Amino acid sequence: MTRRLRYGMVGGGEGAFIGAVHRHAMALDHRYALEAGALSSTPDKARRSGAALGLPDDRNYPTWEAMLEGELARPAEERIDLVVIVTPNHVHYPVAKAFADAGIHVVSDKPLVHTSEQADDLVATVARTGVVFGVTYNYTGYPMVKEARALIRDGAIGALRKVIVGYHQGWLATKLEDEGAKQAEWRTDPARSGAAGAIGDIGSHAENLVATVTGLEIEAICADLTTFVPGRRLDDDGNLLLRFAGGAKGVLVASQIEIGHENDLVLQVYGETGALTWRQEDPNALWHAPLDAPVRLLRRGNGYLGADAQRFTRLPAGHPEAFFEAFANVYREIAEAIERHGRGEDPTGDYPTVTDGARGVRFIERTVASAASDQKWTPFA
Amino acid sequence: MTRRLRYGMVGGGEGAFIGAVHRHAMALDHRYALEAGALSSTPDKARRSGAALGLPDDRNYPTWEAMLEGELARPAEERIDLVVIVTPNHVHYPVAKAFADAGIHVVSDKPLVHTSEQADDLVATVARTGVVFGVTYNYTGYPMVKEARALIRDGAIGALRKVIVGYHQGWLATKLEDEGAKQAEWRTDPARSGAAGAIGDIGSHAENLVATVTGLEIEAICADLTTFVPGRRLDDDGNLLLRFAGGAKGVLVASQIEIGHENDLVLQVYGETGALTWRQEDPNALWHAPLDAPVRLLRRGNGYLGADAQRFTRLPAGHPEAFFEAFANVYREIAEAIERHGRGEDPTGDYPTVTDGARGVRFIERTVASAASDQKWTPFA
Amino acid sequence: MTRRLRYGMVGGGEGAFIGAVHRHAMALDHRYALEAGALSSTPDKARRSGAALGLPDDRNYPTWEAMLEGELARPAEERIDLVVIVTPNHVHYPVAKAFADAGIHVVSDKPLVHTSEQADDLVATVARTGVVFGVTYNYTGYPMVKEARALIRDGAIGALRKVIVGYHQGWLATKLEDEGAKQAEWRTDPARSGAAGAIGDIGSHAENLVATVTGLEIEAICADLTTFVPGRRLDDDGNLLLRFAGGAKGVLVASQIEIGHENDLVLQVYGETGALTWRQEDPNALWHAPLDAPVRLLRRGNGYLGADAQRFTRLPAGHPEAFFEAFANVYREIAEAIERHGRGEDPTGDYPTVTDGARGVRFIERTVASAASDQKWTPFA
Amino acid sequence: MTRRLRYGMVGGGEGAFIGAVHRHAMALDHRYALEAGALSSTPDKARRSGAALGLPDDRNYPTWEAMLEGELARPAEERIDLVVIVTPNHVHYPVAKAFADAGIHVVSDKPLVHTSEQADDLVATVARTGVVFGVTYNYTGYPMVKEARALIRDGAIGALRKVIVGYHQGWLATKLEDEGAKQAEWRTDPARSGAAGAIGDIGSHAENLVATVTGLEIEAICADLTTFVPGRRLDDDGNLLLRFAGGAKGVLVASQIEIGHENDLVLQVYGETGALTWRQEDPNALWHAPLDAPVRLLRRGNGYLGADAQRFTRLPAGHPEAFFEAFANVYREIAEAIERHGRGEDPTGDYPTVTDGARGVRFIERTVASAASDQKWTPFA
Repeated sequence: MTRRLRYGMVGGGEGAFIGAVHRHAMALDHRYALEAGALSSTPDKARRSGAALGLPDDRNYPTWEAMLEGELARPAEERIDLVVIVTPNHVHYPVAKAFADAGIHVVSDKPLVHTSEQADDLVATVARTGVVFGVTYNYTGYPMVKEARALIRDGAIGALRKVIVGYHQGWLATKLEDEGAKQAEWRTDPARSGAAGAIGDIGSHAENLVATVTGLEIEAICADLTTFVPGRRLDDDGNLLLRFAGGAKGVLVASQIEIGHENDLVLQVYGETGALTWRQEDPNALWHAPLDAPVRLLRRGNGYLGADAQRFTRLPAGHPEAFFEAFANVYREIAEAIERHGRGEDPTGDYPTVTDGARGVRFIERTVASAASDQKWTPFA
Repeated sequence: MTRRLRYGMVGGGEGAFIGAVHRHAMALDHRYALEAGALSSTPDKARRSGAALGLPDDRNYPTWEAMLEGELARPAEERIDLVVIVTPNHVHYPVAKAFADAGIHVVSDKPLVHTSEQADDLVATVARTGVVFGVTYNYTGYPMVKEARALIRDGAIGALRKVIVGYHQGWLATKLEDEGAKQAEWRTDPARSGAAGAIGDIGSHAENLVATVTGLEIEAICADLTTFVPGRRLDDDGNLLLRFAGGAKGVLVASQIEIGHENDLVLQVYGETGALTWRQEDPNALWHAPLDAPVRLLRRGNGYLGADAQRFTRLPAGHPEAFFEAFANVYREIAEAIERHGRGEDPTGDYPTVTDGARGVRFIERTVASAASDQKWTPFA
Repeated sequence: MTRRLRYGMVGGGEGAFIGAVHRHAMALDHRYALEAGALSSTPDKARRSGAALGLPDDRNYPTWEAMLEGELARPAEERIDLVVIVTPNHVHYPVAKAFADAGIHVVSDKPLVHTSEQADDLVATVARTGVVFGVTYNYTGYPMVKEARALIRDGAIGALRKVIVGYHQGWLATKLEDEGAKQAEWRTDPARSGAAGAIGDIGSHAENLVATVTGLEIEAICADLTTFVPGRRLDDDGNLLLRFAGGAKGVLVASQIEIGHENDLVLQVYGETGALTWRQEDPNALWHAPLDAPVRLLRRGNGYLGADAQRFTRLPAGHPEAFFEAFANVYREIAEAIERHGRGEDPTGDYPTVTDGARGVRFIERTVASAASDQKWTPFA
Repeated sequence: MTRRLRYGMVGGGEGAFIGAVHRHAMALDHRYALEAGALSSTPDKARRSGAALGLPDDRNYPTWEAMLEGELARPAEERIDLVVIVTPNHVHYPVAKAFADAGIHVVSDKPLVHTSEQADDLVATVARTGVVFGVTYNYTGYPMVKEARALIRDGAIGALRKVIVGYHQGWLATKLEDEGAKQAEWRTDPARSGAAGAIGDIGSHAENLVATVTGLEIEAICADLTTFVPGRRLDDDGNLLLRFAGGAKGVLVASQIEIGHENDLVLQVYGETGALTWRQEDPNALWHAPLDAPVRLLRRGNGYLGADAQRFTRLPAGHPEAFFEAFANVYREIAEAIERHGRGEDPTGDYPTVTDGARGVRFIERTVASAASDQKWTPFA
């Protein structure tokens, strides 16, 4: 049994949602141990949260700066291997930068940072320091997303023509941010969330899913962003036309005001000889439509699937896997990358990296620019 | 029992698809009798087709001009009440114009004509002559489409925010028009189909469905049209962003290269307090998502539905109705309008008129204009 | 064009449901003309109903006996070709018997008659007179039911092991027969409906669907029938275990108290190398699960289907067909059988016959017998 | 933070499926620590498996007897709190008996034991010793199963009339047990699996789901069991009619030869005023059909659900939970029961107990007896 990787968490204290999800996902495969934390931007709350999670006093830090200093003061064999950043978006950059510079591996939630300048700086930092840097675009961790990617790579649907991706939610159809909902509050606050609302929060997942599964590169964006809920400060609905390098076209919808949808991320990819459809809320299924033949319903856990889907499968067919396992799959790959790094091997793996994160930031920026422009097509580059 | 309305058909002879559908739909309610025809642009074929349908020799015309002349020569009590035009699109205008001018009621397939000028001329002609003029946007004949319209009108989902409409087909993913498929041939021929391919053939249905159900008026269009199949002369894929008067937004997708879809017309409407979803391939269902409450599955034939849905229902719940019945519902309303006209009453009814048809033509024109423009928004007016 | 077959209808007057469905289905293909009728057991109502349907006075009969006499008095070239019996069940036998004896073809609704003795007598009568005798088990008219039958016949799922068939309805969950609902009234009245309620009304459809699609022969029945609604006089719920010749097993559920189901007839067939599933409420689909391979979704109207499914298809894929067309398919086959009979050819065709009807009566009888028995297995023969 | 409960595991070594699932589920909430094990009936393999899981040498036992002895020799504050039995079925009884007798809490997989005598003995043992005894009927741990139970308990569908439960699998449609599949091997071996195959393995889950959700008590069983795969020694298909106390009826299907089904456990409950449907493969949904109103789709994570569903929910709506979380919910309740027991409080909780296990054993016995009987109804008691 290899030793568990020691991690310190920034953010994710009392009342936070995504921090607990990360800890849960990291626990699934017994590859990580929480050994340090600066769990809130409010020092008191940070300490209280750390104590509740069983952190020893001397590693239950009031601030991330203190954590960085404290950990660096420890001997290497005790020091945290990685920092996990699960704060609102505006904190990602300084923390990621500081820890990566110190040679500590980084996992950050998405969107990576607020600006392309910050993102490019992190990419450069990673190139320079060689640390492993994962970004938790968790939806690409699903086995049937791996299968979709493999089928496309292997030519099962031919040259790609068109992508329709939608990330449909309805939870912000009313002004929840005024009713004390912490998740709604920071996501609709430009200072913490960044230049975009729905596009940043969920549109960025849609972009990543498309890029990961299809390998297509966006060439130009035509966006219409709307704030439907009066008084809200960021977009809660975005509709985009996309042009990809090589001539493929796309439609991307990201909305948080579409009542009746919970977390309905749907990807449809059309090629010259077939099509694929995947839905996050029914994640164990992948629909494959071959040209002139019946649609086939591929399901996780079956022997007819490819190696990638098999490798990320934990339960037999019909015993559904879901959100946590997909999230854990990302973390499992990061753990293996860090271990390879520790052995001096190439840490490349099947997880979203700082480069994916940077492309996601550019996607948000270019979308916001397009929405403000009278010109039809805003170049992506 | 009222007498059956006498109709003459233009187009719809041997090998035609939609003509037979019209005859079938008209037969369902025993309100119409086929008594004359000019069933093909090839006189021999016209005669052969007419004979096969049992037309008497003297009303089995070689051309529509001959039919118009021949019918006008008959006494009014024998003359056809209406002409039904089921030719390729380019023939709609002269026939509709000539018969309307002669005071004969008209039913035309969609899209109505090739240009807004033609459309406006028909609108004026109808205003002048007072004939009943129906356009067979058949999908609005479904009972659950009536229910959706009624729910929106009655405020069940509040002020409208967003519409997503897709008309997804895959049958033209390859160059079928080179393989002797008559339906594919004329639809991809600009001379017969008009300035648009998928947008004209099916995008126009999507536009009509949105207008009928929501009452929203398009203010501006941003379109990206593509011809994916090499050598094809018209678009086979179109993706549009829409802005409606009053601030609602829209996404419209019309494609004939999306493999795996057959005739997948889907409408999603989002309001401030709820949402509705309807799919043509599962037409007896309507999904209603109220804010903060479970989604409700409304089904045709149940007592909880409104008067409009009830009025167009022919079978009890669970005994599925489908394409033909919806088509017949349009014709039933037209029959009643013609009968009211005959009694000197107001012929207004629940069927798509020349005005709907004209708006559809403008939609196609503006979409094609937008696709050719670098400007983001092309005004609809 | 062949001449239309002349039919006389018994039952199906004012307020009746199924008679109108028959007329509608018969009209679809223009193969039949209604020329006579005895449309109600109440002479006044019969005459009123006939007038409303445009019957000439001299063929608008007060009773079926009068119709038989009247028609026989006409010259053969005017006389009705067939009688269509759409009365409550208790009237089927005398009418069918009398007309068949007179050499007039018969179509009867199901269940055929009340007792096996009556059924056997009709089988013998048909054998003696040679008339065409159709029984409107309409659900076997669906194209995808034809496809299921063809796949099984061609070995696509191997030797059959098991059948699960359910006919789930909820409309009789309350005592509707006390609220003036005509359909509920006679169906729950032993004098008119026969010895069984749900089992006779819908269980018999389930039996016919299994027999038609699989060719399996029931060897023994183990039934539990229940009357859930207090005061009701016939079963409203039936659950059966079946044993088929050759070792296959079955489960049959027929219920009219299962709230939430409308007309939910579902057939699942399991063989050694695959399985099939079909649902009446989604009739254009057929699910085929091959052993160790992804489930395939077969859909009506596609080129990959077999000849039987193609032959009964009226619209392209994605343009849904439904209840009326399936019903019309049965009538189309009967029309062709009658025409062949007229030409002195073998009238055998793809429609349910008096033999199917007789087997259905036996099924009801044996089920009622089993329900009353302490013995586990009641032989079918 | 409360201390983690110390557990020893019997079975679940190399190549086992369900043992790993238990460990995984126990890990989710950080309430348990694996501290001892006798992980295989083959001592060498047991030791190898324990080492791989990081067990210290002195608690990595070659046999469960050694584990019992070794643990009892330790001071109470080090000793395991509970034993978790995940062996093939025939080992459950002696282990459970011995540990319960020693005052150590027990969690056993299902079916509990081979005979009612053994089961009754365990019930008596638990009554005598007062230990907590959980049986991992994991499917009742799903939040929407809790919601179904609550709705029924609160009268949402009225007095119950009928239950249809199916547990459909296809993985044993061929003779997998001859191809080296360990899971298939022991499940089809009477010595290890018990008197029943499919009925014991999955029928028992179906029985437990019905009992848990509805509270109905089986009064009599009428069963038909079949072994379809030649040479197999136990049933691979079972179809049952059920009669419940109070007059409700039931149908139970448990099959492992239904190709196309993976792990398709479906529960349908019909009452006088409504119905509920739940499917294990789509576990976040619960369909509620009220009388004469549209079907409602209830989904996990929404505010409109009851307290039980909320209490067992870990993620927001649309972020699917699945198999592991349901399993973990059972273990979380057991942990709390053991903790209450430790504080001298009533350990009753929302988890399946030895009594549920004993009823499940009786269900298997009575089903096998019924299948062998010519009598229609075999009493349950």
